[in-house]
Amino acid sequence: MSKNLTTRDKDYSKWYNELVVKADLAENSGVRGCMVIKPYGFAIWERMQAELDRMFKETGHENAYFPLFIPKSYFSKEASHVDGFAKECAVVTHYRLKNSEDGDGIIVDPDAKLEEELIVRPTSETIIWDTYRKWVQSYRDLPLLINQWANVVRWEMRTRLFLRTAEFLWQEGHTAHATKEEAIAEAEQMMNVYADFSENYLAIPVVKGTKTESERFAGALETYCIEALMQDGKALQAGTSHFLGQNFAKAFDVKFAAKDGKLDFVWATSWGVSTRLMGALIMTHSDDKGLVLPPNLAPNQVVIVPIYRKDEEFEAVNKVALDLIKKLRAQGIRVKYDNRDTHKPGWKFNEYELKGVPVRIAIGPKDVEKGTVELARRDTFEKEFIDNKKVVDKVVALMKEIQEGLFTRATNYRTEHTTEVSTYEEFKSVLNTKGGFVLAHWDGTSETEERIKNETKATIRCIPLEGDKTPGACIITGKPSAQKVIFAKAY
Amino acid sequence: MSKNLTTRDKDYSKWYNELVVKADLAENSGVRGCMVIKPYGFAIWERMQAELDRMFKETGHENAYFPLFIPKSYFSKEASHVDGFAKECAVVTHYRLKNSEDGDGIIVDPDAKLEEELIVRPTSETIIWDTYRKWVQSYRDLPLLINQWANVVRWEMRTRLFLRTAEFLWQEGHTAHATKEEAIAEAEQMMNVYADFSENYLAIPVVKGTKTESERFAGALETYCIEALMQDGKALQAGTSHFLGQNFAKAFDVKFAAKDGKLDFVWATSWGVSTRLMGALIMTHSDDKGLVLPPNLAPNQVVIVPIYRKDEEFEAVNKVALDLIKKLRAQGIRVKYDNRDTHKPGWKFNEYELKGVPVRIAIGPKDVEKGTVELARRDTFEKEFIDNKKVVDKVVALMKEIQEGLFTRATNYRTEHTTEVSTYEEFKSVLNTKGGFVLAHWDGTSETEERIKNETKATIRCIPLEGDKTPGACIITGKPSAQKVIFAKAY
Repeated sequence: MSKNLTTRDKDYSKWYNELVVKADLAENSGVRGCMVIKPYGFAIWERMQAELDRMFKETGHENAYFPLFIPKSYFSKEASHVDGFAKECAVVTHYRLKNSEDGDGIIVDPDAKLEEELIVRPTSETIIWDTYRKWVQSYRDLPLLINQWANVVRWEMRTRLFLRTAEFLWQEGHTAHATKEEAIAEAEQMMNVYADFSENYLAIPVVKGTKTESERFAGALETYCIEALMQDGKALQAGTSHFLGQNFAKAFDVKFAAKDGKLDFVWATSWGVSTRLMGALIMTHSDDKGLVLPPNLAPNQVVIVPIYRKDEEFEAVNKVALDLIKKLRAQGIRVKYDNRDTHKPGWKFNEYELKGVPVRIAIGPKDVEKGTVELARRDTFEKEFIDNKKVVDKVVALMKEIQEGLFTRATNYRTEHTTEVSTYEEFKSVLNTKGGFVLAHWDGTSETEERIKNETKATIRCIPLEGDKTPGACIITGKPSAQKVIFAKAY
Repeated sequence: MSKNLTTRDKDYSKWYNELVVKADLAENSGVRGCMVIKPYGFAIWERMQAELDRMFKETGHENAYFPLFIPKSYFSKEASHVDGFAKECAVVTHYRLKNSEDGDGIIVDPDAKLEEELIVRPTSETIIWDTYRKWVQSYRDLPLLINQWANVVRWEMRTRLFLRTAEFLWQEGHTAHATKEEAIAEAEQMMNVYADFSENYLAIPVVKGTKTESERFAGALETYCIEALMQDGKALQAGTSHFLGQNFAKAFDVKFAAKDGKLDFVWATSWGVSTRLMGALIMTHSDDKGLVLPPNLAPNQVVIVPIYRKDEEFEAVNKVALDLIKKLRAQGIRVKYDNRDTHKPGWKFNEYELKGVPVRIAIGPKDVEKGTVELARRDTFEKEFIDNKKVVDKVVALMKEIQEGLFTRATNYRTEHTTEVSTYEEFKSVLNTKGGFVLAHWDGTSETEERIKNETKATIRCIPLEGDKTPGACIITGKPSAQKVIFAKAY
């Protein structure tokens, strides 16, 4: 397996695009902007899904499924929502094909035009709130705590595998509550669930915060987010959780009778993460040799490669390998045994380096003699010979060590690339040299935010919820600022 | 919870429609023909998915994800395939909305017309085989054993919840092989996996067979199927597995170099089951009181309802209940504890009867005194008081007993409603009186098949692979027949 990856230093963007394809994660399809997620990439996504799904259920949510299509009239009911999504909607207008009369092949049947066009969901607030109207009459019907795993379509003009695609996979939670306080608590809870998942499974440190008005979700009163920092100093929004107030309840007339009999509109949240997390995972940990995967999400945590020339050597090695696999699996370790005779060990070593398998174990005839195996770590490239009897304990310990090591490494990178500045000059200088998160005072206006964006391409990633809350003066206008906010160039 | 279900005798079709809605499984949405799968219905589907996914992985398959949209030109490449699906395709023609200039609201932007229309996938053979061309060069790249969990759209004119909806959820396996024999073996294997799942999880007995030419999947050389019989004597096709020959490989130019270097087209299969299985599950087991669920798929296998008037009674009952829940869960039993004080026990009994929970346990103050609980079976309505110490063992045993009992009951029903006939008169008489599967000799021609269908509405469900293979004479033409085939009216 020849890798020839462009290095990150040379061209970070090219490195990413090549890695996604060469590590068999995804590729572009024949449909503009739509990707094919290949089995290895999908196996990682499945692990993300499994953990998130468990966390959602542990916080009381249930899954359901709502239609792919949204009638145009529904879509238009919440004004700021339609404004936010109208420019990127795939629209179904017909429901039949036919053979053209001039024998020119298959055409769209003009007689099969829909009375009302259907939008392929870019997000499901409208169709879901149209449904919730039927489900909610009284406070007894609340809260509704529902999640959906689904595909959505946003017609992006410039697309990149996982980071920005016309179709992507995600989950979208949509909850309904009797009080404002409960809805806000739910939105905050889900931000915390996302942060927990990101740090403990993806091994990606995140900053929790709220979005500025101009960066909020279309239709939200508050957008909570988790922001991560990639190795090229650019930020990536890894998940968002929205407090939607009563906007959708009003648009779809969803009212409930409180205990005292009074009617009020229902309070809402929505929250989502998508296959974009695959991009975050890749860009946070991987290196010039390929993918680096945290053990908690790696489809294969350990790969075992037998080394042999003669058949009797293979027999001896194979016996040791099979025994080890059994013991590792008994400990819940996900092991791949690559005993293919169509590929040489060196080729396999390269392949699993490229694919980011956390631990590689090689067993040769000399190892069998000595009762050892060779163990190599993907994250640090450390290799050691280790007593066969100690391998299982070592591997179990390594899973934790590697997981934590990746998180620490990413956290250190972020610390080194987080800079507090006091002046706009300093701000621009940091952005142009080391990049990363730049903490600065801001006067809270969209005008100042817009000016900084136009002049530097940096946006406010979030108003952090934790850390230093000292007030100060805006680096542009000198006007009062409640606390420093985080700026960065972003994906 | 008032049920007022229409009885099956009175109007089977109405009974089904009411049950799906009243048991909170699914409902119609505001989008024509598209359903909302409610949390309780989705929880059953999730259990089906989990078991099937495990079975697919155990037979060597991996999951992946392919685009929702298929360019019209791809779709047209396999002639019989496009013929089969053209009449029911949702077509995306535009990618943007805008505010109308006359202030009339949101309209489809005529300037955002796609150069080539996109079909919302009704099935993914074409987009997948366009991708496989890039993945397959040599015999070393084969087999490809890939499955996808996805939503698909077929613009059906007459829809019914779960049974026939414009959008539905399914899995579609798509495999590529070096030889015809291997592809046929794969298609047969997946039919057997479906039959195993159907009988051991859904508790639905099925007949395995092949479809006649006219009932085959559009583009297949052979369609294997499993056919089930519903309580109204109508058949339901529960799963299909197709041997596609080299049709798609030829349409998309997918060739591989064999070991000897010769180029040949790749051999294909595809296979799928869908949310239609929910319909089969409901119609096979449920009764006039509501849903009856086999324990292997029930989201809640046991519900515990505390009975009390005074607070101190609740405390005593609650203590016993919590202890029992702990012990049942330790045995892997899925238990729901309904201790809501907003609903009376009688209401709860009705609700869980309607929702098909296999076992209900009620605990009252007298039970606490006596060290007993009241245990009720959903399938037989049997009730008994049982020693608290024996409950866990009893419940564990009941799970198996109920699962097998449902399968036996359904098998007996099918046996009683399977009739061998020798003449067309007899054929029509059986169809019009008891319905069910009718075994009859058929001359193997589409003409005879068509005539029977037009005159009786019965179709050939399958040519059974097992059972009596004695040749005979066609009931219509008297021409030779290789074996009896199964006719029925079908969903």
